[in-house]
Amino acid sequence: MALKVALLGCGVVGSQVVRLMQEQADDLTARIGTPLELAGVAVRRLGRRRDIDVDPALFTTDAEALATRDDVDIVVEVIGGIEPARSLIMAAMNSGKSVVTANKALLAEDGATVHGAARANDADLYFEAAVAGAIPLIRPLRESLAGDRVRRVLGIVNGTTNYILDKMDSSGASFSDALEEAQALGYAEADPTADVEGFDAAAKAAILAGIAFHSRVTAADVHREGITEITATDVASAKAMGYVIKLLAICARSDDGRSFGVRVHPAMIPRTHPLAGVREAYNAVFVEAESAGRLMFYGAGAGGAPTASAVLGDLVAVARNRLAGARGPEESTYADLVVHPMGETVTRYHVSLDVADKPGVLARVADMFAKQDVSIQTVLQEGRGDDAQLVLVTHRATDAALSATLEGLRELDIVRDVVSVMRVEGEDAS
Amino acid sequence: MALKVALLGCGVVGSQVVRLMQEQADDLTARIGTPLELAGVAVRRLGRRRDIDVDPALFTTDAEALATRDDVDIVVEVIGGIEPARSLIMAAMNSGKSVVTANKALLAEDGATVHGAARANDADLYFEAAVAGAIPLIRPLRESLAGDRVRRVLGIVNGTTNYILDKMDSSGASFSDALEEAQALGYAEADPTADVEGFDAAAKAAILAGIAFHSRVTAADVHREGITEITATDVASAKAMGYVIKLLAICARSDDGRSFGVRVHPAMIPRTHPLAGVREAYNAVFVEAESAGRLMFYGAGAGGAPTASAVLGDLVAVARNRLAGARGPEESTYADLVVHPMGETVTRYHVSLDVADKPGVLARVADMFAKQDVSIQTVLQEGRGDDAQLVLVTHRATDAALSATLEGLRELDIVRDVVSVMRVEGEDAS
Repeated sequence: MALKVALLGCGVVGSQVVRLMQEQADDLTARIGTPLELAGVAVRRLGRRRDIDVDPALFTTDAEALATRDDVDIVVEVIGGIEPARSLIMAAMNSGKSVVTANKALLAEDGATVHGAARANDADLYFEAAVAGAIPLIRPLRESLAGDRVRRVLGIVNGTTNYILDKMDSSGASFSDALEEAQALGYAEADPTADVEGFDAAAKAAILAGIAFHSRVTAADVHREGITEITATDVASAKAMGYVIKLLAICARSDDGRSFGVRVHPAMIPRTHPLAGVREAYNAVFVEAESAGRLMFYGAGAGGAPTASAVLGDLVAVARNRLAGARGPEESTYADLVVHPMGETVTRYHVSLDVADKPGVLARVADMFAKQDVSIQTVLQEGRGDDAQLVLVTHRATDAALSATLEGLRELDIVRDVVSVMRVEGEDAS
Repeated sequence: MALKVALLGCGVVGSQVVRLMQEQADDLTARIGTPLELAGVAVRRLGRRRDIDVDPALFTTDAEALATRDDVDIVVEVIGGIEPARSLIMAAMNSGKSVVTANKALLAEDGATVHGAARANDADLYFEAAVAGAIPLIRPLRESLAGDRVRRVLGIVNGTTNYILDKMDSSGASFSDALEEAQALGYAEADPTADVEGFDAAAKAAILAGIAFHSRVTAADVHREGITEITATDVASAKAMGYVIKLLAICARSDDGRSFGVRVHPAMIPRTHPLAGVREAYNAVFVEAESAGRLMFYGAGAGGAPTASAVLGDLVAVARNRLAGARGPEESTYADLVVHPMGETVTRYHVSLDVADKPGVLARVADMFAKQDVSIQTVLQEGRGDDAQLVLVTHRATDAALSATLEGLRELDIVRDVVSVMRVEGEDAS
């Protein structure tokens, strides 16, 4: 007896899910122990030309009816966004279906509701495809590392911004030129906000942090900065110092282990760091655990086929569970750790200042750092006629201390401008 | 009610398993839903000083009695080797226990027997720790990629040999000096045969190939060459050409998809390839799947704590299954593909010859390649008085064609010596 699959959404990912279900039908049957059968495909509009070969009778615009149909066993949601995806997933689970979703926005915004419904209905909710496309990350984090303690997750989880930053780094292009090229190549959308402002990465960071630290995390808990302010000059001066700028998602336990921070922002990492070599639209994530040490996962973080591969992996797992009358691991939030405010984040900083070029300037600047207990590792001063550029790299300090330092610096008459401030990451992680 | 765990073996890995079970007891209880309790530890000799804090009454030399004890739920086997590990695992499964093992040798030598027993007893057999230590590889391959078609697995799966080759590359050391250093640092054993002759990597390759291609593979199916013949000159000349020599495990589907090859041998890879940057005793594995594309997994491939982390992850999964009355995915060999002989392997080759330095030599050498249909990509000739060194890199050709070419070359009077032959990998995989 076949297991019946309802597909909600038939865009880039959905059509690849259908293709794989067809092309690999025999393999899937062998791996699951019974065939999968496509019960229906919910779309917004009928009659649209699609790249897949499916009986037209399977298409419907009534997603809810399909998701709750008696003969459906598993619902695959690849619509994205909060609504109607959430209502559909809830309806499906309340009707006893297992659910596979690629919906990072929903899980990050309102994971509590959907995970709660999974628990209440004893239903499977799998979402490997929601983070980093084809890269197995959710399963390793929640299963392979289930006997370990994760300290930190640090990675490149947005392909669009990585493509743009990589282009800026390799060609010296400005942000807007690199964005335009990414759009022309289909790596960035017409409205690139979700990517370049870090919303997409923040949703993924929230999901990863929740799993890594067994706590509930939402997108609102994530400190988020995008890459729109990064200039060609920032990229070039990072390059000159042996660094590359990447948009990182960082989930890190505090030193006492009782809280953690989640943040997404551009940062400088040494060119020798493995993440520095992640080019174009690829993704890569470092996971540091107490016993496992440092692990890295690398691959295509987006795209129809890679994301569909992750969906299919979940589909096989959910189907096997269904046959066995079992279910996979449910949401784990027992640790209930606190997300600490950004001010408590400890990292290093690269600060570039325009200052007056006269005696005593360095002493006064250095004094401002010292007052806030921010220790300086390196200083580079370069005269340019009347004024000078001062580039400082600090030792580890809290975000709050650095902010207070910057405030103080801005009040000094000898500081003409705080040109740029960038966090420095990854020097202890390679 | 606690789930009772019998630990067979208490060496480097076993003692770390005990430590983690103790230190993370609360977390494990929360993640599983019930506590794990150490029911006993089977050791070869009692009264030995150990680094763990365990009630001495838990130690026993009667491993079989412990593994089959009525109150034991899960057996963790970290003894290694074929016997008595196999008998103990069989006895445990025949008594209805679930089993977690790190035993690559047994799985590669006689996987059929232990997997068969798991199936017959409806028991779980988990073995993430058997390949690449803490790196999640088994679970991603058999679960995350369950809906995809794996084309190739290519990686560094032996830390000892990677340490030695990395040392030879970075310091110019000879094989024996690098081996000595690895031994002094504990990366290599007193008898390094299993590592340096490629047996360890071959066992892992067999396990990976079996999972990747859903077929049964044993160590005997693996073409195996070690690194003992690699000279400092080989390493230096690879370096001069922009390559680094690594011991690779390669499992690759044939172009028609109906067979596959499994091999372990030293190979030259371009320095720009991500595997080239894998230093010291680290491991890294590339997996190429049709839809997922190229994935890489990187981390510590050995060591007590990393391996114990993998064991604990399996322990949590097996414990959850036990509570749910379910079991994980069983061995999948339905595809039953043929392992093709080494002669059918297609790759590129770097061949270094000592030849007489006179007119017509290159033509005669090139003709020998052409006769076997082996196409040459680059040639470098360097005169050295009476004779010359000829370095050729070929395009893709079968191993059989290359072997026939070499045989022909050795018969030419103008060829004084075939100095070295090395496969070139990874140029299409970065």
